[in-house]
Amino acid sequence: MFMARPISDPLKKPSRELLLEAATSLIRMNGYTSTTVDDLCEKAGVSKGTFFHNFSSKEELAVAAANRWSKMTSEFFRSAPYHQKKDPLERVLGYVRFRKEILKGDLADFTCLVGTMIQEVYSTHPEINKACFDSVFQHAENLEADINEARKLYCPKAKWTSKSLALHTQAVLQGSFILAKASGDVRTAAESVDHLENYIELLFKK
Amino acid sequence: MFMARPISDPLKKPSRELLLEAATSLIRMNGYTSTTVDDLCEKAGVSKGTFFHNFSSKEELAVAAANRWSKMTSEFFRSAPYHQKKDPLERVLGYVRFRKEILKGDLADFTCLVGTMIQEVYSTHPEINKACFDSVFQHAENLEADINEARKLYCPKAKWTSKSLALHTQAVLQGSFILAKASGDVRTAAESVDHLENYIELLFKK
Repeated sequence: MFMARPISDPLKKPSRELLLEAATSLIRMNGYTSTTVDDLCEKAGVSKGTFFHNFSSKEELAVAAANRWSKMTSEFFRSAPYHQKKDPLERVLGYVRFRKEILKGDLADFTCLVGTMIQEVYSTHPEINKACFDSVFQHAENLEADINEARKLYCPKAKWTSKSLALHTQAVLQGSFILAKASGDVRTAAESVDHLENYIELLFKK
Repeated sequence: MFMARPISDPLKKPSRELLLEAATSLIRMNGYTSTTVDDLCEKAGVSKGTFFHNFSSKEELAVAAANRWSKMTSEFFRSAPYHQKKDPLERVLGYVRFRKEILKGDLADFTCLVGTMIQEVYSTHPEINKACFDSVFQHAENLEADINEARKLYCPKAKWTSKSLALHTQAVLQGSFILAKASGDVRTAAESVDHLENYIELLFKK
């Protein structure tokens, strides 16, 4: 006699994913150290046994959350409309304008998981810091390719490097999140991104 | 008969100051939440009783450390040589160049106490966040005065506000610290500050 296999609910997310979502949300709001395994289990609605079935430690979960963040943000930006522009400078400016557009909702909705973690872990948790570094610096590399094309086209003799400008955009964004958190006012972040856009326009002035 | 008063060693710092120094050093390295009262007592070389004689909680110490940071940094920048320049634009550029010059030593030596704390406390510790906000935004106000003079002199019709540019300099600095922490390389911070200097030169181009 055949035993029917238990059919898992296709709408129910796996516990691992629920824990990664909980980590992303809680760490963006309260930081890495403040967020306990108990908090993560409660938010994800899973037992502690399930946590340790999926991750050997909070640190391992944080590394996985940073890697998932890299994957998610990379898909999110790759599918954004500004990528369709033919002019590479329009893609660069489109990226910056898009970053401004998505400054919406609660602070924990638009601020950066990995930028937040770096502050807490850089000297104590090298594996988490490495995953955060990869996330920010690989994201910058995607932009660097567009900057490089624009640079060749409009200012091939410029003294600055495409890499340094790509990283500068990330510095402005990360710093603008800190100002928004301090003031509780997203406009402080938006105004800094406006200055970044203005800088890029001045740099490439034709 | 006169009793000689016990003479305190004028070279020995008071416990309160030792605890504030310990907080500044440990929080810049490991973050606010990671730093325990025990860590602070050990670093300061004082007993737990002495800690609670001076501060009712770690939170109260963090507020005092942020206020001390504001006072210290404000005196430090006020006495910096760039303040002597007559041209307000030279003072603004001098500030940015000075910020680059002092990117030296270990990460915890040049990164920002209050910028680090904001990330961890903005949603959970409003009093610490308020002290950090005051520190960053009052520091920006000092620069805003110079920017405003330079703006009146060189580009009175500019569309940007002096306040937004002053805050933008802080965003770049805070973000550049995050990149330096992630990469362990101070040059990523310095290159971002170079872009900031370049931006200000382009904005005020005579």
